[in-house]
Amino acid sequence: MKKLPHPDPISGASYSAVELAPANDHVVMMDQRRLPTDERYEELETVQAVVDAIADMVVRGAPAIGISAAYGMVLASHEIRGDYVKGMIEAGKLLKAARPTAVNLAWAVDKMIDEAKSHASLKAGERMERMAEAARQIHREDVAANHEMGRLGAARIEDGATILTHCNAGALATGGYGTALGVIRAAHEAGKKIKVLADETRPYLQGSRLTAWELHQDGIDVELITDASAASFFGRDEVAMAVVGSDRIEANGDVANKIGTYGVACLAKAHGKPFYVAAPWSTVDEACADGPSIPIEQRNAREVTHVGDAQLAPTGVTVRNPAFDVTPAELVTAIFTERGVIEPVGPDAVRRLSPNE
Amino acid sequence: MKKLPHPDPISGASYSAVELAPANDHVVMMDQRRLPTDERYEELETVQAVVDAIADMVVRGAPAIGISAAYGMVLASHEIRGDYVKGMIEAGKLLKAARPTAVNLAWAVDKMIDEAKSHASLKAGERMERMAEAARQIHREDVAANHEMGRLGAARIEDGATILTHCNAGALATGGYGTALGVIRAAHEAGKKIKVLADETRPYLQGSRLTAWELHQDGIDVELITDASAASFFGRDEVAMAVVGSDRIEANGDVANKIGTYGVACLAKAHGKPFYVAAPWSTVDEACADGPSIPIEQRNAREVTHVGDAQLAPTGVTVRNPAFDVTPAELVTAIFTERGVIEPVGPDAVRRLSPNE
Repeated sequence: MKKLPHPDPISGASYSAVELAPANDHVVMMDQRRLPTDERYEELETVQAVVDAIADMVVRGAPAIGISAAYGMVLASHEIRGDYVKGMIEAGKLLKAARPTAVNLAWAVDKMIDEAKSHASLKAGERMERMAEAARQIHREDVAANHEMGRLGAARIEDGATILTHCNAGALATGGYGTALGVIRAAHEAGKKIKVLADETRPYLQGSRLTAWELHQDGIDVELITDASAASFFGRDEVAMAVVGSDRIEANGDVANKIGTYGVACLAKAHGKPFYVAAPWSTVDEACADGPSIPIEQRNAREVTHVGDAQLAPTGVTVRNPAFDVTPAELVTAIFTERGVIEPVGPDAVRRLSPNE
Repeated sequence: MKKLPHPDPISGASYSAVELAPANDHVVMMDQRRLPTDERYEELETVQAVVDAIADMVVRGAPAIGISAAYGMVLASHEIRGDYVKGMIEAGKLLKAARPTAVNLAWAVDKMIDEAKSHASLKAGERMERMAEAARQIHREDVAANHEMGRLGAARIEDGATILTHCNAGALATGGYGTALGVIRAAHEAGKKIKVLADETRPYLQGSRLTAWELHQDGIDVELITDASAASFFGRDEVAMAVVGSDRIEANGDVANKIGTYGVACLAKAHGKPFYVAAPWSTVDEACADGPSIPIEQRNAREVTHVGDAQLAPTGVTVRNPAFDVTPAELVTAIFTERGVIEPVGPDAVRRLSPNE
């Protein structure tokens, strides 16, 4: 059963987080808030609709947000009536403000603004074509990068391994294939018999709602566990390694990712197991020196106190709900990127692979 | 607003997990499944009703289960028509089977059977009185033990400290005052300005539903956090110490407790912070040599895949849902009991405090 309303998705799968319609006039986006029970797609026709979708977490995952923003810029170029470049910069500001921590978002928007500047003198229809092609290229390159990361990461996975992952760094978090789940998919496709332990990832439950859904769809052996139980599986020596994605990697190799990632890294360290990160180079923020300077988004208390209409905590209780944490470079065994493996993780290895060197 | 239908609760608070009615003819029990939104009490008139309440988790927490069972034995003594001691032993078997892992449950039932044997020759009315007094004594001693543990534990808490706790080891898990939360209450009552970070404790959410409710009721500064975010608060050096309860302590000092406890202990160790356990001596199972021999109860997948009617995971996904984990003695800084502090935690310190030595 194919539900995705797109004839030729760049995701390369029967589902996709986000695609641009062939006529370039709207964005097709899965409403990930409805998973795991309902695979439903929205058609977004304005840049504001894309901004809202990012802010409301219809789409999430740093690379998928970046691609969505690029497609949002295509819709913006369709809407602008006055000064084209100025209008594009304004649209970009709106998009960047939708989620503050994701560095790929700013990266994708800036790439699209550069593109807009380079063809500002063209006619509206031609500008649209160029913008659409640039955005699709960002999408294609993301999927290709994930396959490359997958190839590099899968080489570290032994046959029979049980792999812990946290949050969703899968096809749904990216243009397709996934970063951390790309590594897992590549190992599976290489014929390795692996098992995945998927943390449910409170409060937003990306692990149970999305990662378990993706792997279950693909027929990869997955077991859903609560976040706090991960320690006991390390303690019983069931976990061979952990692999996660990242929202932002600093110049020194510190890794910002979904809240709870740092705890997984501490557990891997305490039990002598490798802790891997898979992320495209667009996640690397070479301008940011280290983790403590990363702005950490605080999200709404209701994510913790309620599930749907069910109230889980007493009325009026104070909640702390940071969306991300920072794992220091020394806890990360290696980072798989499409430019190669950052290892040992630190400023030298980051600089060595940098396209700016 | 006082909702507890009892004039003089042994719990010493405006609420209580379980009390015996003054006329000894029924047990008053809070239905903890309804918290945090609804503080409702059930009146249980038969031992079978108490058995069902324990099995269905109307009451939970090892000490509270033990006290409930003792009160259940009072109701049993009311009901028995034939051979008194034989009837009491039969009733005890029913109660012990309700939650087979809780070591305090068997301990309380055996204590009540001994009591029954000692006054088997008395008239029915007098037997009831004696049984009721013996059960209330178990309850009073539990509350007194918690105050003593609290005193010992509070001495380790510095003014201004932020304390992490996991699950609910509070008034609701005991006869009153609590074990881990007794330590926190004692520090608060001593005038120390403390803050509590309460892990929500998936999947059953004892932290958000019960611990946050209790501390919020008492006006103790509490912030609710997700289990996986605890690491980030350690990482930012916000957590001074962790304190938890226990379901079973082995002769070597290994601690079985709610799933997720071991992860908290690993984090405390990694960040150089103390990890404390508070538990009555009835939790210590000197007959069990070490943690790995403890049978770990696997609970229903639905606790993880659903909250109420909301489906959180894809249909058909495999779930692992262990209810407890085991923290090795070497990760535990000290264990507060009413017999003194087990420290350094290991077989020698357990033996030194044992009433059997």
